This record gives sequence, structure tokens and C-alpha cells, in this order.
Amino acid sequence: MTTNARRTAVTLLGLGEMGAAIAAAFMDGGHPVTVWNRTPEKADALVAKGVRRAGTVRDAVAAGSLVVVSVKGNDTARELLESAGDALDGRDVLNLTDGTSAEARAVAEWAKERGTGYLHGQIMTIAPGIGHPEAVVFYGGDRAVHDRYRPELALLGGRGSLVGDDAGVPALYGMAVHGTMWGTLNGFLHAAALLESAGIETRRFLDQAGPSMSALVSFLPSIADEVDRGEHAVEYGALQHHLPSLEDLVRESRARGIDAEFPRYTLELVAGAVAEGHAEDSYSRLIEHFRKG
Amino acid sequence: MTTNARRTAVTLLGLGEMGAAIAAAFMDGGHPVTVWNRTPEKADALVAKGVRRAGTVRDAVAAGSLVVVSVKGNDTARELLESAGDALDGRDVLNLTDGTSAEARAVAEWAKERGTGYLHGQIMTIAPGIGHPEAVVFYGGDRAVHDRYRPELALLGGRGSLVGDDAGVPALYGMAVHGTMWGTLNGFLHAAALLESAGIETRRFLDQAGPSMSALVSFLPSIADEVDRGEHAVEYGALQHHLPSLEDLVRESRARGIDAEFPRYTLELVAGAVAEGHAEDSYSRLIEHFRKG
Repeated sequence: MTTNARRTAVTLLGLGEMGAAIAAAFMDGGHPVTVWNRTPEKADALVAKGVRRAGTVRDAVAAGSLVVVSVKGNDTARELLESAGDALDGRDVLNLTDGTSAEARAVAEWAKERGTGYLHGQIMTIAPGIGHPEAVVFYGGDRAVHDRYRPELALLGGRGSLVGDDAGVPALYGMAVHGTMWGTLNGFLHAAALLESAGIETRRFLDQAGPSMSALVSFLPSIADEVDRGEHAVEYGALQHHLPSLEDLVRESRARGIDAEFPRYTLELVAGAVAEGHAEDSYSRLIEHFRKG
Repeated sequence: MTTNARRTAVTLLGLGEMGAAIAAAFMDGGHPVTVWNRTPEKADALVAKGVRRAGTVRDAVAAGSLVVVSVKGNDTARELLESAGDALDGRDVLNLTDGTSAEARAVAEWAKERGTGYLHGQIMTIAPGIGHPEAVVFYGGDRAVHDRYRPELALLGGRGSLVGDDAGVPALYGMAVHGTMWGTLNGFLHAAALLESAGIETRRFLDQAGPSMSALVSFLPSIADEVDRGEHAVEYGALQHHLPSLEDLVRESRARGIDAEFPRYTLELVAGAVAEGHAEDSYSRLIEHFRKG
């Protein structure tokens, strides 16, 4: 048995759904945990389990070596940390607040200026996934802070990784995963509407088309290489072959009275690239569209 | 050794990239193969390997028991079959021509009226994948034709499956897979542009974020069940939590000077559903948007 006294004292600012799950994970991991939340009652359930509730941000920060922030917006995160004053001296910050890369970087720069160790984390799971061996967290910032708290970070998820020393990178990684996810979900829901219009249950389709659907993400490494190298020529599966299939999908969607805007968007991208002379290029050629503001 | 005389004689109408691969697969499988193509020279390479070239569609059709069609458009497919006249009597048709479900169904109905066995197939691989154990082909139409030619169909791909007795269903399945794929690719290329603007190679991201990206398709079965049941309430990961992340992605895209139209499209869908009172529902609630024409 290891006593709490030998474990890092953790402070948690913010007890939303995610903050509460994080506080519980540290407590279950044997750490003394002090929490602060603007609405103190949110801590009731945690306090009943042994977590300490602080009355002020300053008191909360003073109680921990590692100060974890999980609030709405990085402006709020920074204001809270600033309000701790010199109680933050000698502490390290793990900021798990969502936002843009510039917002994360601004908090990191503020921390650096005052000599506070700083790590930003982008949590890629829903609250009940915190602590799961497969849960992913992308970290960016001070490598020393990351390495110092490896055992603590492991309590948040088994698949944490430091993706750079730039505190803005975790947000970009999160957006890249989520952006791909939204594209997949939109495509899949359009497909579901199409199938439904023909009386086919989506689950039945998925069970029968499973291998084709699993293969979707297997294309991504070659697309990534084409983008990175800027080389888009391919022998098979070029844009000219996507074009008639997209035209079919738009016609089918219209004939069935379902949304045709989603496939038409892609049709226009592909038709545009073909018109610009890229008929024999891979789909990765469309990166040029997305690069433009 | 089995002699050709004991194998089904196969006729192939259309020698595009895909038709040529199909003819080669049947020939390599030991079948006598007769081909016809509007431009006869396209058969030269196959003829050199032992395939027979017919001068007319009628002669080609007369030579085979199974008549495979792989041309551009189902109107053309049907015109070719019609031009064979009574040479088609007693033959079965496997139409592998792309198009909408209605177009496939029209050829199937024509075949049924004249008493010709008919199967429509949607090939889900590029030409070099023909015959691969993992290659998927969706079939729809006469079950008897499907079952009679199982060994022949296996030569086209190891993962062929009869998805219904409606000849239009394979096209819908193909569109559902491809539509999801286009959504994934668009999301991924937008992500690649985002990462690139921060100096991050797409492949590096993919290597580091691999588990998150592989997980994308793992969400689909639960989304499918929600759509089929019409029940969208979820405890975690509801639309209200997607909303701030989408706002971040739009702001980040604008700040970096890359395309913001793609994430804004999704933001508007989600914001609309939240405004309609679906804040606590799963992303699957957006099926209602795609159902509308």
C-alpha cells in the first residue's frame, strides 16, 4: 500500500462532466485531490468520496503540486490561474481546456513568462472513458512536465502521447481527428437516408458491407503520403473515376427526394479539379481546395 | 486438371479497365472467354493470352452461357444486350455496369420480361483488385443466377455477397460506402490542410493519432442502431458538446486562412439541430437533415 502522502497532490479547477471524471480518476489512483468549482455544490459527490473542497482558487492551487484546469474556454482558464497569485509558484499546470491552438498557446506563454511548468492536453474521449486503457490524450508543451507526471497522466488514459513542445498542437490534433469524424458521420448519415428511402435498415447494410466500411480508414496513410510529398498521380482510382460515381449519387439522391447538397459539394470539388487538368490524380489533389481560405 | 470444356463459357461485353481485368480473371480461372468491345483493338492483349474476340455482340453472346456486361451506363448495357436478339435466349446476364438503382432495375426488368436470368453486381475495388480474396462485390437480382455461378463469381473477389433480390440494391450499397468514404476523405483533407498550416506533416499526425483514427468507424454501428430505431437520446457526446468543438474548428480554420466552408457546413447542421431542441441527442439526430430533399 502506498499512502497518499507519497503521491503527488493534485488540484482540479473546474468540475464539469469531464473535470469531475478527472478528479475521480486521480482520487481512485491514490492521490490527494483538492477541487474548486464556481458552483461549489458540484463537488458534493466527490467530497463524499474523500476529495477536499477549497473555498477559493488560491486555496485550491496552494494545496496541489499539479494544478489541472478543465473549464469552458482558455480565457477563463488563464483568469483562474492568474487569480491564484503567488500560490501558483512552484506548481505545474496541466490545462485540459478545449479551444483553438492560439488560445492554448497564449496560456502556455503566460505560464512560461511567470516561470510555471505548463502542459496542454486534448482529451479524445467522453467523460466515462477517462482512465480507460484505450483512451487517447494528446499533450503539448514542456517535455519536462510531461515526463515528471507520467504516472499521473496515465490515470487519465492509457494512450496519452506528447505530440510536440507547442502547447497549441494538441488542439490541432483533436480538430484533425474530429474534423475527419464529422466528415465520416455526415457521409454515413447521408448514406443512411439513402438506404432508408429504399427500405433498407442501416444496421443491415453495415453488417453486410462491414469489410468495405472498415477499409475506409485504410486509405488514409497513402493519402497522407501524397499530401506530404505533393505528388498526386495515381494509376488507379483517379478523380476521373470518382466523377461518374458522384454524378450517380447526386442523381440518385434527387430521384429519392433526399438531401443532394452533401454529394453535390463533393461533385463540384472533383469536377473542378478534373476541369483544372487533374483527372488522372488521386483524390488527395483536393488538398489544394482545402488549403484556400 | 480440369479442361475448359467442363467450365462455364463466359462472354464479356466491354473492355474498359475493369472489363479487361474481369476477362483476365475468368480466363485465369480456366473458363473459355469470348470478348466484344466497340474498339476491337482493346482485346489485343487478351487475345494474345488465349481469349477469343467476337466481331459482333451477337456472336459474342452466342458463345457464352454467362454474359457479363461492363460498359459505361446501363442504357448502353441494355442496348448491347437487345442487339444480341435471340442469341441471348438461354443465357444468364451478370451486369457489372455502374449507375443509379433505377437504371439497374430497368435492365433487370427488361431481362425478366424476356425470361433471361439476371444479376447486377457493384464492384467495390479498383481493377487490379479483381480476384483478390478481400475484394468486395455486392450482388442483387435472381438468387438462382447468383447460386448457379458461385464459382465464377468467386473469381471476381473473395467477398462477394448477395444483398437482395432487387437489382437496384447493389448500386445503393456502393453509393453508401462511397458516400461515407467521400465524407471521410473530405474531413481528412481539411484536417491535412489545417495541420500543414502549422507545419505538421499529415503522415506524422496519422502515425501519432492512429488509434483515434481507427476508432472513427467503430462509432458507426451505434449510429446505425439509433437511426433504425429513431431513438437519439444519449448520455454522453451529445450535440451540445459537438457545438463548441465545431466553433473552435471554424475559428481555427479562419485564423489559419484555410477553408472554413467545410466545418461551417457541419456547424450549421449541429447548431440547427440544437436550436430545434435536440441538444441532448446523439449526432445521429442529423439524419433528419439528410432525409430532406
